[in-house]
Amino acid sequence: MTEHNPMIFEKVEVQPAYQLVASNIEKCIMQGVYKVGQQLPSELDLARQLGVNRSTVREAIRVLEQNGLVFRKSARRLVISLPREQDLASRVSQAMILHEITFLELWETMLPLEVRAAELAATRATEEEIERLEANLRETADCLEHEQKLVALDIEFHLLVAKASRNRALLLAREPIGLLFYPAFYQVMSRLNAKDRLLSAHREVVDGIRNRDAKHAAQWMEKHIRDFRRGYELADLDMNKPVDNSRYFE
Amino acid sequence: MTEHNPMIFEKVEVQPAYQLVASNIEKCIMQGVYKVGQQLPSELDLARQLGVNRSTVREAIRVLEQNGLVFRKSARRLVISLPREQDLASRVSQAMILHEITFLELWETMLPLEVRAAELAATRATEEEIERLEANLRETADCLEHEQKLVALDIEFHLLVAKASRNRALLLAREPIGLLFYPAFYQVMSRLNAKDRLLSAHREVVDGIRNRDAKHAAQWMEKHIRDFRRGYELADLDMNKPVDNSRYFE
Repeated sequence: MTEHNPMIFEKVEVQPAYQLVASNIEKCIMQGVYKVGQQLPSELDLARQLGVNRSTVREAIRVLEQNGLVFRKSARRLVISLPREQDLASRVSQAMILHEITFLELWETMLPLEVRAAELAATRATEEEIERLEANLRETADCLEHEQKLVALDIEFHLLVAKASRNRALLLAREPIGLLFYPAFYQVMSRLNAKDRLLSAHREVVDGIRNRDAKHAAQWMEKHIRDFRRGYELADLDMNKPVDNSRYFE
Repeated sequence: MTEHNPMIFEKVEVQPAYQLVASNIEKCIMQGVYKVGQQLPSELDLARQLGVNRSTVREAIRVLEQNGLVFRKSARRLVISLPREQDLASRVSQAMILHEITFLELWETMLPLEVRAAELAATRATEEEIERLEANLRETADCLEHEQKLVALDIEFHLLVAKASRNRALLLAREPIGLLFYPAFYQVMSRLNAKDRLLSAHREVVDGIRNRDAKHAAQWMEKHIRDFRRGYELADLDMNKPVDNSRYFE
């Protein structure tokens, strides 16, 4: 009998009360009703205003804390905050690991972002930023034989260039890829002698930035990222294999 | 007296139990102990295994649900899931609005990503993907006078090209920028007659993809994104103003 009964009602999707409250407060934050740094009304106040239980408000606040929109200054003081770049990045790179994204996919996306960052850095880097890049170069030259330090300095170098681009959209886009991309070079470094090439490419990029020569900086960054790929292949690593999840093993 | 007492103890940072439990389960998921699609043990089981209250487990699961790692199939069945691209993207674009990122920053980041997407699409697009792009072109030609539809088709066009790149890292990087970038063109469209240029650029990009001519596809995408900027400026919109948060006003 049920076979001949047409479906009339669609299943009702009930959103839990705490989620409704969370999106309500979130919307107020996004519209600027509550501004970053301001204090959120007390749980009791919010419960009264929204007509829900205090425990519902508490759960909603947990969601907002989790999303980085609210920061607990003390047990009772909740302050509106900016979501932190690192938290967002690690969330995205976590998704990349679960989606089994390959090293080739990371490389293909990193190439244009790093080239663009170098190009923009050449027009915008401050004196202080150039000095920090030069300090990084000196340390790199001193650490050529210490692979772990070298990888850490390499990661720092690329982050310094990206920051000198003064483009926060670019920083937000590259960070999750960088988290997975650069650490992989520990394997390349230890199998291959790519260290001198790395140092000289970094030097040329910094030269370009210091001389405000965007083209030079971009060209050398491109050469350098292409070298990464060659290194990966020469070290007999498979570009089509998913990036590893080893940073989740302590 | 207290002034002369040196500080010996650092403040203890207590992580709430539910967060410890959440990161514990998260690590198991990331390490593949629980795989996507598998069912999570029951709350009671988890509480026993982890030596905590059932309510602590429940709160931890809320965190995991919030992060898209766990999906509630029914009241009692929790299944490991992949974080959804759209959820991550809207989280990142939310952060971009709060950080008051400018249209110029979006544009500078979008340019290399879109060019790269077109280039890769030319080597990888399937027949079906090319057909969908051609259907989009036909609809665009029919909607030139309907601005809202035109913007929707423009957003779809760029997403179709990005998907045809078959690079999920690139998709994850561009999605949050695209969410803020393309809708802004509604303003440009309504102030300026850029419609014919838009259609012919889209046509050239699709030609490049269909003919497997990566250079042609990339060059026309670059031209097209540079045109966007010119349209923005000609429409007297300020590139240095933060992108608007109007999608949070219904």
